[in-house]
Amino acid sequence: MLNLIITETALEQVPKNIHSHQTVVKHAARLGKKPGNTLLDRSYHHAAMIKLDYHEKRGRPDIAHRALLSALGTPLNRENLLRVFMHTVKEKVIYVNPRTRLPRSYSRFVGLIEQLLIEKEVPRKEPLLLRVEKKDLKTLINELKSQYIVALTRVGKPKTVEKIAESLVKHEDAVVIVGGFPQGRFSQHIIKAATDAFSIDRETLDTSVVISRIIYEYERVLGLPEKRLRENQKDI
Amino acid sequence: MLNLIITETALEQVPKNIHSHQTVVKHAARLGKKPGNTLLDRSYHHAAMIKLDYHEKRGRPDIAHRALLSALGTPLNRENLLRVFMHTVKEKVIYVNPRTRLPRSYSRFVGLIEQLLIEKEVPRKEPLLLRVEKKDLKTLINELKSQYIVALTRVGKPKTVEKIAESLVKHEDAVVIVGGFPQGRFSQHIIKAATDAFSIDRETLDTSVVISRIIYEYERVLGLPEKRLRENQKDI
Repeated sequence: MLNLIITETALEQVPKNIHSHQTVVKHAARLGKKPGNTLLDRSYHHAAMIKLDYHEKRGRPDIAHRALLSALGTPLNRENLLRVFMHTVKEKVIYVNPRTRLPRSYSRFVGLIEQLLIEKEVPRKEPLLLRVEKKDLKTLINELKSQYIVALTRVGKPKTVEKIAESLVKHEDAVVIVGGFPQGRFSQHIIKAATDAFSIDRETLDTSVVISRIIYEYERVLGLPEKRLRENQKDI
Repeated sequence: MLNLIITETALEQVPKNIHSHQTVVKHAARLGKKPGNTLLDRSYHHAAMIKLDYHEKRGRPDIAHRALLSALGTPLNRENLLRVFMHTVKEKVIYVNPRTRLPRSYSRFVGLIEQLLIEKEVPRKEPLLLRVEKKDLKTLINELKSQYIVALTRVGKPKTVEKIAESLVKHEDAVVIVGGFPQGRFSQHIIKAATDAFSIDRETLDTSVVISRIIYEYERVLGLPEKRLRENQKDI
């Protein structure tokens, strides 16, 4: 079982101090929602975001969307060997049911997350797919009771994804932490929370590229690709 | 060098016979465009699409968006060892400059492709990033003059991505073909155009998941991850 934490994800409701900004009011009106019930999104709120602290790390729900699709669409997830947790820049944790069929449409994804942040659980009827709790990363990590926690960051020790996956597989309930923000680095407390911090490339890679690679290598080390192809032949 | 062709991509302008459908008119009006200048998109045009032939394979620009981001964001592309071609369901080919910084925002991506399909080239000023030509897959493949062409499809022979990448690397200018549509299978002529057709998993995987895996394995076989990490250490 691999636990994937997407951390400091640039996903939050529009904060109060920019509710009255023109771009925020206009976008909320178009959606027929109150500003505080809409997601902060740089592609609509760029002008308003300049006022916000560490704004370069915020307002990118598209990163969360692609990251979740990259994780949930893998054979590892279909084998029920992956757990995905999305920790946000606002210290919330979204618990993701592995059976979630996430909307492919960005605007529907945003609508779903907007509903989630208001109602705390979606959908309204069973099975529950997404659940959010106020929680910091440290508390989430403690909950997972893992002996081996790897943070993937440009400032980590250089190590190939293959070698990292070999170490992860050796630990029951290992955790891998990937940043869910566009620029900048992990906050220092995140690196402190990890057993090891590794860099997998000399350049910064997109969150979804990193997630695709670590999950695929984890599958490879488990021998999952061969196993699933053998089962394929049995089907025929 | 790896040539990636995303084929029969569900990317096209709204076809004439549904221009007057209510959902099409409404969506075009919201964008301030003529219906024929907007992209067919199931998330807006679902009701209108039922009238279209083989509609289950059409109207999914989001697949194209994620596929291109998954390919262009890789170290292989940054090393200039990847060429990406997007062949569409309407027999057009989009040539992608490896230096393209694709919009992360879905609505901006759609706007860019809408402009491309009208003006044939974007952006208006140099460097040219995307160019489209009327062209079928067969003609594109002939242009590439490749000795080894692999199609990835659920109906192919079971083979791991690792083994496929090992074969691809042996051929200068190898081509890998991945479907850019949501459901259904390659048209028969596509499988005929390929040297080999392989299945990498017993279930259908998302286009962007398949692309991530084949590019990453190609990098692995080349030894690129280690090479780039060694260069990283030299930088320090």
